Amino acid sequence: MQTAWTPSVGRQLLRLGGRRSVHNREDRTAGLETQSELNPCQLSETLLPAQESKSFAVGMFKGQLITDQVFPYPSVLNEEQTQFLRELVGPVARFFEEVNDPAKNDTLERLEETTLQGLKDLGAFGLQVPSELGGVGLGNTQYARLAEIVGMHDLGVSVTLGAHQSIGFKGILLFGTKAQKEKYLPKVASGEALAAFCLTEPSSGSDAASIRSSAVPSPCGKYYTLNGSKIWISNGGLADIFTVFAKTPITDAATGAVKEKITAFVVERSFGGVTHGPPEKKMGIKASNTAEVHFDGVRVPAENVLGEVGAGFKVAVHILNNGRFGMAATLAGTMKAIIAKAVDYATNRTQFGDKIHNFGLIQEKLARMAMLQYVTESMAYMLSANMDRGYTDFQVEAAISKIFGSEAAWKVTDECIQIMGGMGFMKEPGVERVLRDIRIFRIFEGTNDILRLFVALQGCTNKGKELSELGTALKNPLGNAGLLLTQAGKQLRRQVGLSSGLSLGEVVHPELSRSGKLAVTALEQFASVVEAKLIKHKKGIVSKGMAGWRLATGELGLAHSQASRSLSEGHPAAQHEKMLCDSWCIEAAARIRETMAALQSDPHQQELFRNFKSISKALVERGGIVTTNPLGF
Amino acid sequence: MQTAWTPSVGRQLLRLGGRRSVHNREDRTAGLETQSELNPCQLSETLLPAQESKSFAVGMFKGQLITDQVFPYPSVLNEEQTQFLRELVGPVARFFEEVNDPAKNDTLERLEETTLQGLKDLGAFGLQVPSELGGVGLGNTQYARLAEIVGMHDLGVSVTLGAHQSIGFKGILLFGTKAQKEKYLPKVASGEALAAFCLTEPSSGSDAASIRSSAVPSPCGKYYTLNGSKIWISNGGLADIFTVFAKTPITDAATGAVKEKITAFVVERSFGGVTHGPPEKKMGIKASNTAEVHFDGVRVPAENVLGEVGAGFKVAVHILNNGRFGMAATLAGTMKAIIAKAVDYATNRTQFGDKIHNFGLIQEKLARMAMLQYVTESMAYMLSANMDRGYTDFQVEAAISKIFGSEAAWKVTDECIQIMGGMGFMKEPGVERVLRDIRIFRIFEGTNDILRLFVALQGCTNKGKELSELGTALKNPLGNAGLLLTQAGKQLRRQVGLSSGLSLGEVVHPELSRSGKLAVTALEQFASVVEAKLIKHKKGIVSKGMAGWRLATGELGLAHSQASRSLSEGHPAAQHEKMLCDSWCIEAAARIRETMAALQSDPHQQELFRNFKSISKALVERGGIVTTNPLGF
Repeated sequence: MQTAWTPSVGRQLLRLGGRRSVHNREDRTAGLETQSELNPCQLSETLLPAQESKSFAVGMFKGQLITDQVFPYPSVLNEEQTQFLRELVGPVARFFEEVNDPAKNDTLERLEETTLQGLKDLGAFGLQVPSELGGVGLGNTQYARLAEIVGMHDLGVSVTLGAHQSIGFKGILLFGTKAQKEKYLPKVASGEALAAFCLTEPSSGSDAASIRSSAVPSPCGKYYTLNGSKIWISNGGLADIFTVFAKTPITDAATGAVKEKITAFVVERSFGGVTHGPPEKKMGIKASNTAEVHFDGVRVPAENVLGEVGAGFKVAVHILNNGRFGMAATLAGTMKAIIAKAVDYATNRTQFGDKIHNFGLIQEKLARMAMLQYVTESMAYMLSANMDRGYTDFQVEAAISKIFGSEAAWKVTDECIQIMGGMGFMKEPGVERVLRDIRIFRIFEGTNDILRLFVALQGCTNKGKELSELGTALKNPLGNAGLLLTQAGKQLRRQVGLSSGLSLGEVVHPELSRSGKLAVTALEQFASVVEAKLIKHKKGIVSKGMAGWRLATGELGLAHSQASRSLSEGHPAAQHEKMLCDSWCIEAAARIRETMAALQSDPHQQELFRNFKSISKALVERGGIVTTNPLGF
Repeated sequence: MQTAWTPSVGRQLLRLGGRRSVHNREDRTAGLETQSELNPCQLSETLLPAQESKSFAVGMFKGQLITDQVFPYPSVLNEEQTQFLRELVGPVARFFEEVNDPAKNDTLERLEETTLQGLKDLGAFGLQVPSELGGVGLGNTQYARLAEIVGMHDLGVSVTLGAHQSIGFKGILLFGTKAQKEKYLPKVASGEALAAFCLTEPSSGSDAASIRSSAVPSPCGKYYTLNGSKIWISNGGLADIFTVFAKTPITDAATGAVKEKITAFVVERSFGGVTHGPPEKKMGIKASNTAEVHFDGVRVPAENVLGEVGAGFKVAVHILNNGRFGMAATLAGTMKAIIAKAVDYATNRTQFGDKIHNFGLIQEKLARMAMLQYVTESMAYMLSANMDRGYTDFQVEAAISKIFGSEAAWKVTDECIQIMGGMGFMKEPGVERVLRDIRIFRIFEGTNDILRLFVALQGCTNKGKELSELGTALKNPLGNAGLLLTQAGKQLRRQVGLSSGLSLGEVVHPELSRSGKLAVTALEQFASVVEAKLIKHKKGIVSKGMAGWRLATGELGLAHSQASRSLSEGHPAAQHEKMLCDSWCIEAAARIRETMAALQSDPHQQELFRNFKSISKALVERGGIVTTNPLGF
């Protein structure tokens, strides 16, 4: 059992407890059976298809180049879909340029009525609802393009629209019965009813499985009585339709034992017993409404169960995974607008006798901002395209795009303020508002910390399965000669420093071949460390610094792909894209090389982590800083 | 001329133009004579004493360990001063805990009247004014301790008090005549009159020397007529006393030629012609007033010239350098308070069945936050102590402490929000307010970008002088044998990878000897790269990535010093300090090693900087992002 890497090991690991004492671990394991079924890690079982994953990122962990989803850069829209999208892009962009006032929304702490009505008129509340049910009927790529425009202008609107359709009623789209769809989708698509996604509770944030809201079936089986409170619900104070997660008692048909499992429900405000708190006062996205939502003895008809009874956690995870692609697209748009502001300032500002864009320091900042935008955008559209192509193993890429996009947008906006100096700190140019807005993107819909663990865990679980097969194969070497030979050969090649034989040569444009080689080398280094660490630490790997591993390897391939296509098709900006891609690869490869080298050979790593633990322990015991200042009082 | 590193080369470099064409450089050189006297770089001539610098940081660039200011950790307060300070600490802390309401100040966008009056009663407006002129008569170390308390509670108050005394009337303290001091200091010390520092203008931010405000002497010589507008003036809308910088015509006695030079003035609002704009709307420090100040034909008596006529730039630079120590102390206090909030949250929040401080991910975050606070605090009090000890070469350390402190506080506060998740984004816990407040500290009183250049330039200028002497010595080897032998020996030892013979062994506590060795090695690597780069690039060095060089080397020594003293004196937290120091050194040494290795050997460096320039140029031509999204529209 110690050597095998199974999903159940994964479940334990995602509980983050790897570094605690055996005593504590045993304590919690006692209650694991009930809770494990509700754990985010269950993703790996419920979402990844049984067959070999086509995910580029998952392949990375195994030292494989799986290029199906990545090369060539996917183009999914046919002519008609492209034309339809083009017809939408103009009016939506004009609406944001001419009607919506983001500064005013921020000050009012709500969307102006003209904005709300305008968005309804544009169909913005039902972009992915089928047209026969009153929506615009867009695919993911088309949705991404419009999300990008909204993100360029007003993240308060992005969150309002996203909370509504990207998660609020997405469950009905994905899991709804025909009756549910016909009843609710027309209303939400028109914007007549706003939707909200109710998962988080006061004691349950990242640990979504630990919610306490309950829905108890009536003896007659016709309805459930829902009780519980949800917090930080976007649109919570405005919505009429709620996707609510609550625990329901499930009886095991065979044993008669009763377990608590999460079930998803569609709840209407009109059912009665639904109330909400005042709008929360927040740092940013003030234009969007955030509120507590309370369910007090709400009678929910049994036909409003969304998906299967007891399968609510899967429903929640599916909705969140499905919604993530929109965030990267939104933030790619935000960065585009912010970079334009930075460029405008640098172009017009004179200091030291020259326009400041002529100074190397500013050039470096602008170039890095452009690189971050380019990589985020590449990921966003690749992800939406793969979803449109029907791939179901996009969760790891979706998580990476959310982590990367939210951190990139934070850096880009922060740097824009630095370029603008004092002016950047003022309200008037509107950059400080965007920085305030963006801060929540690293937190909500899965904090970046938890998503990093998710990526590491998914990759290691997959790689662990391979190693576990290897263990089995070793017990029956004759029957598994093929697997053993391949594996032994790979390890041998790595040990003597030979190339793994992997190459992007066939898919990457010749002009990007050097960058392609950097990517492959980085991938090899990464996979080699994963393998060594998995063999050494086994299930402890996630706690051994895995969380901090760079995700950059994944991005390497993606930027190549877009730049390759542009080079092949002779786009006017292709040489510019090559520079962005090359520069990114040079720096990302160096970062990965250093991180991997430190993980493999730094003698201080263990000491550092021991120190961190001790320092933190002392802080907690003392309730803050332990040292006094040098004066001693 | 090409090989010599002289201050005039430095002057040119600080103009940031290193990467531009020869043509442009020549254009500007034509006007250099007038402007060079107004350049921040003049610091190196006007402020650094003629004798060998005692600055640890300057020594670093030369590969020397100058420990005078650093070991042992300085203690400057005598018993009486300590007792006096202790008597102030209690009431000031209580005032902020019981009277001041930072959230309310932030909402009101001004300080509450009770706060203002309370601060006056505490003497907080004249902390460093001599007691015979109505102030509290504190030294820098004592001031730092109180600044730390204010920083723990309300950065809006910090900025109001700092703009008043740290820069607003600091010029009168440093350069005022007896009459000026007697006239103005009692009024400002009591808070009866608020003071402001008026340097920045719409077209003159980092390039302070380019101000346009003018003060023309009257024919009779009795007054100056002041015209001009200043922007982003803290306390600008409230102040009655202004330290104003304006250009005055200066006639060269010998040649009769007239030059424009900056002169500093003390201006009273009561002179007439002084008006201000409305309070600026800002991201943070909203409680502090920021406004434009206009001087329209203001008659300033000649006796209100501050310092010498034409020496105003020196006055400005001295004031800013003198005020910087307070910022690091303030932000050390801010971090202390923020860490307490993060610890409180981590101690009480349960997720995944356990308090989150038990998770390695949270422990690492908390430990890193404590390390940043410890290093900032060490620097702040060392700096104030060295100023109190009468050292005059503290400018580089002051700049480093401002850069480091403002970035550390940003990281710590941002990480506190991440630990708190959604709760951190809410207004109520007050952490988002601190993040908004802190953003300006990386910008005002010298942007961190410009200060980085200043540090690099000061260090290289000093090292350059040594190299230049070496060049002279080579022409007369017999007369300079000593210098040549030392230098040749040093270079030889480095080339064959031997230790330079430097050691912190005698000053660092034995328990920190390993960390001390890491620091020395880092210093050697740094100095060796500085030397190689100076020889290779000469005056182009600042543009060759110098700006990005890590400043961490300086911090290494400082943390050792405080921890050494604590270990020697057997402080209760000494072992905790050792852990903070060791962990910091391990990571800083690795960062420096990597950065220096990249600077020395990365074949891609030049290509990267070429790419950055091209990418930036294209962005400027296009007015923003050049690439289209993958859809092409």
